[in-house]
Amino acid sequence: MRLLSIDSSGLTASVAVTEDDRLIAEYNVNYKKTHSQTLLPMIDEILRMTELDPETLDAVAVSKGPGSFTGLRIGSAAAKGLAQALNIPIIEIPTLLGLACNAFGSDEIICPIMDARRSQVYTALYRCMSKTEDLLNFREWEELKEQCAIGIGELTAELNGRFSETDRILFLGDGVPVFREYLDTNLRVSHSYAPSHMNRQRAAAFAPLAIKYYREGKTVSCFDHAPEYLRLSQAEREKNEGIRQKGAAY
Amino acid sequence: MRLLSIDSSGLTASVAVTEDDRLIAEYNVNYKKTHSQTLLPMIDEILRMTELDPETLDAVAVSKGPGSFTGLRIGSAAAKGLAQALNIPIIEIPTLLGLACNAFGSDEIICPIMDARRSQVYTALYRCMSKTEDLLNFREWEELKEQCAIGIGELTAELNGRFSETDRILFLGDGVPVFREYLDTNLRVSHSYAPSHMNRQRAAAFAPLAIKYYREGKTVSCFDHAPEYLRLSQAEREKNEGIRQKGAAY
Repeated sequence: MRLLSIDSSGLTASVAVTEDDRLIAEYNVNYKKTHSQTLLPMIDEILRMTELDPETLDAVAVSKGPGSFTGLRIGSAAAKGLAQALNIPIIEIPTLLGLACNAFGSDEIICPIMDARRSQVYTALYRCMSKTEDLLNFREWEELKEQCAIGIGELTAELNGRFSETDRILFLGDGVPVFREYLDTNLRVSHSYAPSHMNRQRAAAFAPLAIKYYREGKTVSCFDHAPEYLRLSQAEREKNEGIRQKGAAY
Repeated sequence: MRLLSIDSSGLTASVAVTEDDRLIAEYNVNYKKTHSQTLLPMIDEILRMTELDPETLDAVAVSKGPGSFTGLRIGSAAAKGLAQALNIPIIEIPTLLGLACNAFGSDEIICPIMDARRSQVYTALYRCMSKTEDLLNFREWEELKEQCAIGIGELTAELNGRFSETDRILFLGDGVPVFREYLDTNLRVSHSYAPSHMNRQRAAAFAPLAIKYYREGKTVSCFDHAPEYLRLSQAEREKNEGIRQKGAAY
């Protein structure tokens, strides 16, 4: 199958075209331009470079959330538009599981952390299974903790309580530069951090998972797809706080 | 430091810009166009997209070989041209170690195999160390077997003799689709294959290693850099065979 994958849930804009177990092209940019400026030109660039007719795509995979509200909406809008125009399904990838896919083959506990502001992270915990019988070489991910938004202190306490000193945790994601010092000071479990080529969202990395979902029929139509924010947006939060304050004042 | 990495040693053309532990941009294409058509436009594209002034680059890293003779020469020529124009050093990356870098964090024995034609592979064996104290999160690679060109039968016999059934080998590289069936039939050691996002050359993957070499002063000038083919080219081989045949005939 031929798949276009998109991730703009964080600071990196990432697009990839995969055909079964072959990555045909990918383009990743982590630069200050906004995704609304980069994402569609990047898709256009790789389709042009590989002379790929979009009509031959079987599905679009997109990072469903959590993540940057604006980023998720840009990725979702692009995926929905393409899926509707090409009449193909959308495959939704949980952002943190997609991020964990970068650490394929690691025997460590994978803890993706995304900076969710206000001392919170979007996080989850996974472990990569050691074996596969899958022809596309996909390995299952065991979910040790569901995607959530929690305080970095709360996460650290949970990790300290749940794992022993013989366990090893690998952190990745844009939360690392923000919380590395905190973790090194407060986390008692042995841990390390992923290097540059696997520490941010990469659409190519979740393509094998997306192909598995596709084969299992886990797809949605362009009309049914929507991002999953896990939290209220700043605007909604402030509106609610405003309502509460108003209620208090009057 | 700011690094441009290039790999055109195999079927994939791959370019990346890294700044310390941050991947700024990467572009990978595995398509039937030749690298002479794709590589420079790809570098141009990512520099333009990230508004990066080439004058701010500190070094160019390039896959030194082995690999496709033409591919290596295209990558080397690009690296030499840029290094001379910008007056910066070249960092040479052994192709198979660069390929192994895709499997960072794996506890398996990493066996990159590149199809070298005539039932041979370019191969080597590595193991990723489990810990790092490095701020850029680089982990050392233990070399279990030097880069070489050998027959797939010879490699399989060596692996069968050297490793036990409790060991696990992870294969990656463009030799996998060619020799997978042979390995599954003849290799007794437990083994598996890397999925699409890490089974081909990726310049971004060897950037952490290149930065380590740079910090250790392991660089060469544009005048000293040359690819390492490990074998005679087809033209040289046939010339030698022709000389021998001539010698035999006359």
